[in-house]
Amino acid sequence: MNVDGTHYRSIWLNDDGWSVSVIDQTRLPFAFDVKRLTTMDDAAVAIRDMIVRGAPLIGATAAYGICLALRADAGDAAVDRAHAALLATRPTAVNLRWALDEMRDALRNRPRDERLTAAYARAAQICDDDVATCHAIGGHGLALIREAWARAGRKRPVNVLTHCNAGWLATVDWGTALAPIYMAHDDGVPVHVWVDETRPRNQGAALTAWELGSHGVPHTVIVDNAGGHLMQHGEVDLCITGTDRTTATGDVCNKIGTYLKALAAHDNGVPFYVALPYSTIDWTVRDGLAGIPIEQRDAAEVTRLRGRTASGEVVEVSVTPDAAPAANYAFDVTPARLVTGLVTERGVCAASEEGLLSLYPERACGRG
Amino acid sequence: MNVDGTHYRSIWLNDDGWSVSVIDQTRLPFAFDVKRLTTMDDAAVAIRDMIVRGAPLIGATAAYGICLALRADAGDAAVDRAHAALLATRPTAVNLRWALDEMRDALRNRPRDERLTAAYARAAQICDDDVATCHAIGGHGLALIREAWARAGRKRPVNVLTHCNAGWLATVDWGTALAPIYMAHDDGVPVHVWVDETRPRNQGAALTAWELGSHGVPHTVIVDNAGGHLMQHGEVDLCITGTDRTTATGDVCNKIGTYLKALAAHDNGVPFYVALPYSTIDWTVRDGLAGIPIEQRDAAEVTRLRGRTASGEVVEVSVTPDAAPAANYAFDVTPARLVTGLVTERGVCAASEEGLLSLYPERACGRG
Repeated sequence: MNVDGTHYRSIWLNDDGWSVSVIDQTRLPFAFDVKRLTTMDDAAVAIRDMIVRGAPLIGATAAYGICLALRADAGDAAVDRAHAALLATRPTAVNLRWALDEMRDALRNRPRDERLTAAYARAAQICDDDVATCHAIGGHGLALIREAWARAGRKRPVNVLTHCNAGWLATVDWGTALAPIYMAHDDGVPVHVWVDETRPRNQGAALTAWELGSHGVPHTVIVDNAGGHLMQHGEVDLCITGTDRTTATGDVCNKIGTYLKALAAHDNGVPFYVALPYSTIDWTVRDGLAGIPIEQRDAAEVTRLRGRTASGEVVEVSVTPDAAPAANYAFDVTPARLVTGLVTERGVCAASEEGLLSLYPERACGRG
Repeated sequence: MNVDGTHYRSIWLNDDGWSVSVIDQTRLPFAFDVKRLTTMDDAAVAIRDMIVRGAPLIGATAAYGICLALRADAGDAAVDRAHAALLATRPTAVNLRWALDEMRDALRNRPRDERLTAAYARAAQICDDDVATCHAIGGHGLALIREAWARAGRKRPVNVLTHCNAGWLATVDWGTALAPIYMAHDDGVPVHVWVDETRPRNQGAALTAWELGSHGVPHTVIVDNAGGHLMQHGEVDLCITGTDRTTATGDVCNKIGTYLKALAAHDNGVPFYVALPYSTIDWTVRDGLAGIPIEQRDAAEVTRLRGRTASGEVVEVSVTPDAAPAANYAFDVTPARLVTGLVTERGVCAASEEGLLSLYPERACGRG
């Protein structure tokens, strides 16, 4: 998407044909810094230190990390070492392992002098595929926004509420939940986004607000407490969020607080959509509440936060009494009954086993 | 309640018999500073600058502000000027006007040389009445916590979730929502409190966590997004919040985000109680959603927040991109259907017109 009128992906190959650049997301929204990655270690640090985040972007960065490793040593042992080193950066990210395995498969049984070219080609393909997936999600979601606009008599902007950041910064381009919003905006469908701050890490206030602002999409930041009130008063036409894991029955595990917004949407008759690529569906889990362990992260993410002082310095401040204990649950599970529909690269379906199988019939093979 | 073992009210008459002290709540939780008020202006500034906040405490501070004004000039005109000046500090606070009118009534038709004594007596009475009201609320709420403890087989602490600060800092002592918690703790009923951070002004993270910690009540600060997840997993036995205004039919207007927690409680079968003194009931409003205007406050409360740096300096930082628009709705309305019961100084009742009239039958006079 655009940053002040210039098109960017979240990761790209430089004109030198080998080094890779990413946007330093730890510096957003206070500075737009591009970081050039020239070694496998650079890529590993970028993932580990959350210079890049979001499952698809992590996968793409790891893929280019393999390319950079090959420049130093294209031997089998070196590839295995790079695979292991990159995998260790964020061991729980599903896409990370997938991308690394894809890269290794692309190099297997190939002569050493062809490996570098093959690696760069596969990494580029991983990026392009992600863009295509997000673009397809955006197209299907756009239809939902158009419908909402029609329901509003095309007289006012469509108000969409989103939680966390499932935008182009989390993917290679477009995003998942935000892809339909960018498409609507670019197609002239007036859209306004309520951006949940998304404590504790403030991905909404920091990243989603920055993304939307940079591309020129009208938006308003609100605290996570405000969405229910807005829905009670007809100020939200639809909600769209992303998901970290979707069960075979349509339960959605996403950033903590998503469940509360889904409850409010349900209570007020506001459609609640979840946008996801195929890769987030976990066909092995049927009950999200019982079957998905919820990560507890460092309590310091709750008690401290990062911001910019009046003098422009970016500092971390504590917001609780020194001795206050805190707990930090990273995700929650929204039961399928509260989800109006799942927006995937293949279309929109009900949040149910039947719905998912209607889009992914190949998963029904061997059943009953 | 206690601060490191010493009993405090949130406002008190000093040993000199005329000056008044309050805890500077703008400095909490980072510093425990007591501010001495010696003039009517001191009292007005304390209210206006939110050195004191919470409707009952604002009323008590205004009452003593009249006393301090009388020390300079006990004439009718001076009393009227003080009444007007104090009322202008927070024009929307219901208790402020009530307390000021009470003070003026206490002085009316009284010789000037008796006025000062009468004023201090009435101000002390206002404080003592508030303490008695909160104590009574606490006693009725304590019974609910004891029941929850019995349901848990008296084998583990009762987990209570609260939102915002309806504690002793908001009243003269005890608080409303927190009074039952202090009583349970003091009576040996083990209780643990989930403290909602309560963005944007962080009254939970800053004030409730400080109050509970100072008195020694076990608690854990969580982001406002987390309560639904905790309720899904059986980690909350009951919720108790305060209220700024309660309708004649039991709808509850309270700090933004209360509605979302009530939805989660309802969805998970967790009792959701609201604690209130009689004075917050607005018998003129029957539909909270339609009848209570919701204050929109400065967007800067969303985009910036106050915290302490590693070096101990208290600073304000921004957490959004510079140009990001924000909206700041201060309250929301929780429909009576989501409220398990109202805990008042007269007992616990259903959140309904019938429930309220059963406790306040005098309000039924002249009806049908």
